[in-house]
Amino acid sequence: MKEVVLGIDIGGTNTKFGIVDLNGNILDSKSISTAVHGAIESYLEALSSNIDQVIANSKEEIVLKGIGIGAPNGNYYRGTIEFAPNLNWKGNIKFVELFQEYYEIPMVITNDANAAAIGEMTFGAAKGMENFIVITLGTGLGSGIVVNGKVVYGHDGFAGELGHTLVNVFGRHCGCGRKGCLETYVSATGIKRTIYKLLADHNGKSELIDINFHDLTAEMITQAAKKNDPIALEAFEYTARILGMKLADAVAHTSPEAIFLLGGLTKAEDYIFEPTKKHFEDNLLNIYKGKVKLLPSGLKGSNAAVLGAAALIMGEIN
Amino acid sequence: MKEVVLGIDIGGTNTKFGIVDLNGNILDSKSISTAVHGAIESYLEALSSNIDQVIANSKEEIVLKGIGIGAPNGNYYRGTIEFAPNLNWKGNIKFVELFQEYYEIPMVITNDANAAAIGEMTFGAAKGMENFIVITLGTGLGSGIVVNGKVVYGHDGFAGELGHTLVNVFGRHCGCGRKGCLETYVSATGIKRTIYKLLADHNGKSELIDINFHDLTAEMITQAAKKNDPIALEAFEYTARILGMKLADAVAHTSPEAIFLLGGLTKAEDYIFEPTKKHFEDNLLNIYKGKVKLLPSGLKGSNAAVLGAAALIMGEIN
Repeated sequence: MKEVVLGIDIGGTNTKFGIVDLNGNILDSKSISTAVHGAIESYLEALSSNIDQVIANSKEEIVLKGIGIGAPNGNYYRGTIEFAPNLNWKGNIKFVELFQEYYEIPMVITNDANAAAIGEMTFGAAKGMENFIVITLGTGLGSGIVVNGKVVYGHDGFAGELGHTLVNVFGRHCGCGRKGCLETYVSATGIKRTIYKLLADHNGKSELIDINFHDLTAEMITQAAKKNDPIALEAFEYTARILGMKLADAVAHTSPEAIFLLGGLTKAEDYIFEPTKKHFEDNLLNIYKGKVKLLPSGLKGSNAAVLGAAALIMGEIN
Repeated sequence: MKEVVLGIDIGGTNTKFGIVDLNGNILDSKSISTAVHGAIESYLEALSSNIDQVIANSKEEIVLKGIGIGAPNGNYYRGTIEFAPNLNWKGNIKFVELFQEYYEIPMVITNDANAAAIGEMTFGAAKGMENFIVITLGTGLGSGIVVNGKVVYGHDGFAGELGHTLVNVFGRHCGCGRKGCLETYVSATGIKRTIYKLLADHNGKSELIDINFHDLTAEMITQAAKKNDPIALEAFEYTARILGMKLADAVAHTSPEAIFLLGGLTKAEDYIFEPTKKHFEDNLLNIYKGKVKLLPSGLKGSNAAVLGAAALIMGEIN
């Protein structure tokens, strides 16, 4: 019998889970849709039946020791998902309590970026780092802040919501009900909005003009940039300028050794990293200049959050 | 022989030091000018001769066990003051090394707001709090961030420089060489600049119009506000709006239980606290609303930083 844990990464669009052994190997994994489930009950039903299926089909004899969950607005102290702008389930969801009706084993939740930070620290490129920040650029912008080797949860369990720091008080409408939040500019969705803004400003002149907003993806924007599409290139510059400024602010809070950028938008690689590095350095206070690394994840693909959720529960049951 | 430590609070204008017993009682204290000393050598000479004098005149038999220092851009790890915009001594000052030529005893330095945070935690209104932020509103804006009961120094020892987070990239010139930093708007100096901006905007109509910039003080602005001077009242509103917005951003980083406002500008009491509370709440993400207290220091007058510097070295020698 091999001891394993389950790591679950809940995103606004999809949920990915993995069976992870205690050395950080993902034995099996699967992705299901988050967005199709309007009610938490039907989501949990679908999630558990998919988990049970994967466990039943496992090649090895396994025993599940615990479940770690990363979710937007996941609260570590209370086991809840509270008022997550990018999820269908509104209000205060008692996630752990509800999900323990399916699995009566140790279970802990935190926000998805905190989980990614734990994954990066345990199995990825942040091994041995005591002070760093992880930024996830997906549907929204998530962040996990590590100080003295520990994820910062703060007084209320909700530390690290940099996606909702302010860029422009008169700016874009945010899912949180306010205006001008960082994630409305810097995220896979944010850069789509920037493309539309730039197409409006310039009255066209881009291959992206024929794509409707729903169909447009960050990947398409990267492909257009590779063909020197001026709107796509300007969108990356625009995104990077805002991200660089706000990351410089984040350094002035906790003075990290490195900031890791993860998630869908980072598949653009140099198109997002290079201008962000430039604007980040330009905006840093002199005492920080040249000292803070901007790095990609050390974990493959979308595994950081699953491994992080797994590492989170491993830390609790050890 | 009573065991004591020395707490030193170095500000851009004045330096205050106190002989502090291990229960946090200030036995003696004195203030000297920081600003008159263009060179660090003459400053240290003046500081040490004043300290020696106070010790010589002490009513009790005392033995000095250590020295704690709070200073702008004080680096805990390296014992330095580095590139402090509001001090005359430029570049990288090896403060502890230089000052240990006068006193060969344990000595440690950190930024003045970190020291104030330690003072508030050890002897003031943050007793028992694990997660809070201290903001000092003096010549500049300093900040000390406490997470899990410990001051955050970060990777490089310079965490907590919120005075140099960005308000407006095209904004006011800052002593750090950049533009639009928070402290250019929110500090005792910042509100003076705001008075001048408002006098320019409104072409006068204030009792403050007859005072030159050098003579103008935050205290005069408070007195004018008490007489319903419209420019003074608008200056507090303007300052509070920017402070409230940036404190809401700070909450999204480390999710504190409380934020303490200290220093010269807070002598305006309700004139600064009330509008700041309003704008702070208005700008908080919904998961934080109504949960974060905005409080004055629990320590009298300007003692927080001296007691904090003393508490800092007490923590090291115990």
